[in-house]
Amino acid sequence: MGRMVEVTELALRDAHQSLLATRMAMEDMIPACEDLDHSGCWSIECWGGATFDACIRFLNEDPWQRLRTFRKLMPNSRLLMLLRGQNLLGYRHYEDGVVRRFVAKAAENGIDVFRIFDALNDVRNLRTSIDAVKAVGKHAQGSISYTISPVHTIAAFVDLAAQMVDMGCDSICIKDMAGLLKPQPAYDLVKGIKSRCGDNILVHVHAHATTGVTLVSYMKALEAGCDIVDTAVSSMSLGPGHNPTESLIEMLEDTGYETRVDLQRILRVRDHFAKIRPRYREFLSEFSGVDTEIFKSQIPGGMISNMESQLKAQSAGDRLQEVLAEVPKVRRDAGYPPLVTPSSQICGTQSVFNVLMGRYKVLTGEFADLMLGYYGATLGEKNAEVVQKAVEHAKKPIIDVRPADLLKPEWEQLRSQALALEGCNGSDEDVLTYAMFPQVAPKFFKTRGQGPKNVGREPGVTKAAPGAKHREPSSHEPTRYVVTLNGQEHKVTVAPAA
Amino acid sequence: MGRMVEVTELALRDAHQSLLATRMAMEDMIPACEDLDHSGCWSIECWGGATFDACIRFLNEDPWQRLRTFRKLMPNSRLLMLLRGQNLLGYRHYEDGVVRRFVAKAAENGIDVFRIFDALNDVRNLRTSIDAVKAVGKHAQGSISYTISPVHTIAAFVDLAAQMVDMGCDSICIKDMAGLLKPQPAYDLVKGIKSRCGDNILVHVHAHATTGVTLVSYMKALEAGCDIVDTAVSSMSLGPGHNPTESLIEMLEDTGYETRVDLQRILRVRDHFAKIRPRYREFLSEFSGVDTEIFKSQIPGGMISNMESQLKAQSAGDRLQEVLAEVPKVRRDAGYPPLVTPSSQICGTQSVFNVLMGRYKVLTGEFADLMLGYYGATLGEKNAEVVQKAVEHAKKPIIDVRPADLLKPEWEQLRSQALALEGCNGSDEDVLTYAMFPQVAPKFFKTRGQGPKNVGREPGVTKAAPGAKHREPSSHEPTRYVVTLNGQEHKVTVAPAA
Repeated sequence: MGRMVEVTELALRDAHQSLLATRMAMEDMIPACEDLDHSGCWSIECWGGATFDACIRFLNEDPWQRLRTFRKLMPNSRLLMLLRGQNLLGYRHYEDGVVRRFVAKAAENGIDVFRIFDALNDVRNLRTSIDAVKAVGKHAQGSISYTISPVHTIAAFVDLAAQMVDMGCDSICIKDMAGLLKPQPAYDLVKGIKSRCGDNILVHVHAHATTGVTLVSYMKALEAGCDIVDTAVSSMSLGPGHNPTESLIEMLEDTGYETRVDLQRILRVRDHFAKIRPRYREFLSEFSGVDTEIFKSQIPGGMISNMESQLKAQSAGDRLQEVLAEVPKVRRDAGYPPLVTPSSQICGTQSVFNVLMGRYKVLTGEFADLMLGYYGATLGEKNAEVVQKAVEHAKKPIIDVRPADLLKPEWEQLRSQALALEGCNGSDEDVLTYAMFPQVAPKFFKTRGQGPKNVGREPGVTKAAPGAKHREPSSHEPTRYVVTLNGQEHKVTVAPAA
Repeated sequence: MGRMVEVTELALRDAHQSLLATRMAMEDMIPACEDLDHSGCWSIECWGGATFDACIRFLNEDPWQRLRTFRKLMPNSRLLMLLRGQNLLGYRHYEDGVVRRFVAKAAENGIDVFRIFDALNDVRNLRTSIDAVKAVGKHAQGSISYTISPVHTIAAFVDLAAQMVDMGCDSICIKDMAGLLKPQPAYDLVKGIKSRCGDNILVHVHAHATTGVTLVSYMKALEAGCDIVDTAVSSMSLGPGHNPTESLIEMLEDTGYETRVDLQRILRVRDHFAKIRPRYREFLSEFSGVDTEIFKSQIPGGMISNMESQLKAQSAGDRLQEVLAEVPKVRRDAGYPPLVTPSSQICGTQSVFNVLMGRYKVLTGEFADLMLGYYGATLGEKNAEVVQKAVEHAKKPIIDVRPADLLKPEWEQLRSQALALEGCNGSDEDVLTYAMFPQVAPKFFKTRGQGPKNVGREPGVTKAAPGAKHREPSSHEPTRYVVTLNGQEHKVTVAPAA
């Protein structure tokens, strides 16, 4: 009795990424830090690819400075970041030297726990990151991208976990990005990992609330021995986000499980974000309920809206149902990749092409790369005929090595490119920012001196700047606003995502 | 393995009562009936006090006709209604003859399952209803009003259930109106009832989703042997409403529990209400997230807003915190009544009086009646000093008999009063409508001939009728609208609740 359940609070990263299109500015997070630092959470998730991207793309904020501020304001907490293995925070494979530099700099600037995943669950894409984290003495968490398919059995996932432990991981995360993890598989999976890897390997479950079942899955995971779960304060929870921290604490009463989380601190954090959230309502996810369709379609909501706009651009908006029926076939042909970034976009776009132009008449370069192994290995067998088409299309060989093995050292080149940019301060952090987002970094370096902007809007005190007009959703013009925050006027320009 | 879990769908009653201020018109429910009738649910909840009230107060719709329509459209389903014991659907105790007539007429018009509760959990207030239900050969479900207090132990609730079974109930409902039922008490309570009353007594759990924990409580209740749970299709769920039907079905996969609910039918019902719901957004509950405050304050959200407006009317809006601190004391003095209608209003108003005028300097008539036993007995001991003040204030004796024992036969008088009203059709149903809502029925009888109105508004096609102006929330003027529904214009007048 009285077994301790640890909690990771997501408000500062995945919660606003899922609910507010990652737009929350640092100034709106700072007031919550002291309470979070004393909340008793096992870790505070606060950094990752999308928040890094949003910092330089929308908020004119240095993501490294954001991390250093978190570190300073939460000296008692483990800070956790999400890392896409060999992709780091970007969308391509980086050469090992860049991976090692990135991890070292992230650790130096404040990260304690690196949650490392690969979209295809190819553990070879995790190895360098794990080694780099261990080399700087930090916590390496190997993360399973949870999905459902004929080849994704409990046994297969347990094997993955065992490989990650063998590679030196300190803990294992079951990362359920889409709310697909049901109670019984949650139980079986945690039980399986614990019995295979030993009770002293921490098991951490991360689930989204989208389908409405995952708080029950947390309960069953805890009964199976899960050590840590991820939640977000209620004012930053539910819908495409996560289960509420307060609900987790309350549900455990008298169950024999308890948390060390200080509910009063968490309620203060909740009140803070409840006050802040309406300023971002322009970015607020429209969906706030529960949707169980994904259990059947296995197609995440974000992927459906992507495909819809692709179809509309081709004046084929009426063919969505055909595309939705095509996705599972494309996924099967590709060896059942989990449908997460980037595999969801790759399979989705290929499905659109298949419907509009005939099955595999045209292959996207990315889909060909996926079929040929350039993203890594999939758990399922690929369709040999489609692989052959990819060979013909891409005029590249099939590879079965780790994709990054084909890369040459690139640090010096990235460094000289970055240093040539106006406003680059010459630090390794700046080189890494450029390496992650080479299209966005140049503009950011140039404007960085103007300081962070906050794209939230105080309800009721927004007024149009001279010459500004009401923002049309379809407009490609940046729109200027004068926003009054806490009595101070800020000139804000909102530009569409590149 | 494969134990069957039964489901009661709430979309037609408690779901829109909780989410849309009970305003859904029959025409918006009819299209869902065929799918619901073939959905495989154990029962369809479709009738109760607030829907009856809203029919005649806002929708100019005959609630008996609504019931007959449900009966006709769902011939294969058990129709369930919520009955407030000796209060029937009204706000006072009725004499036994009226109770028997009401139950017989409800059964004759279509009700199969009567869920019978008393706000104080005084089983004497249930006896006549239970007997009347059994006399007409229908299913009598005794319902426990779940609450938390020092006297509301698992053992006390199990005693209540045993008394209800002894009184002839066919099943027991644990009715958690506020989302207070946590997983472990859910487990213990179901286990306790099953072991005391026998496995063949069906146990039915009804919980709201407000605190975010109750789907987990359903899981634990099922593990303890619970037979039936209440849910609502996802488009009519969450916030102050209930857990989503689809989530319940999905969460059970591979657990050894299954439902006979047809997910495809339920998804069609969901789609229907997803389309309809925006028409009622004017009535939509503002709260759609999770709130765990009630675990601490034990004061339902609706009760807090009532007290706030009472305070504001006395220019004492700044004293809410004092009142919130007073409520638990008043509740203790009153013997720990569950805080539901009408005890929540009675204790809330007395708390406001105590803060504004000194503790128990002034007693409301209703609070005095509560203290003197005129609503029935409470589980806890009452504060003797406050009882004495109630005697002095009300100049009425303390009673310990069943309150309805003091009432004289009243049917003939109700009947002659009703028949004297313009538009009364002379049926027993009309007499009962008058008996339930004597202030509202006269106007309804007069306007009934104009047919039902729908207070929903088609987004984008609302236009003001000549002379109508934008409705101010504080206005006491009825406002007229011309609403275009399915291409037909309806003139609608929205009047504030009396």
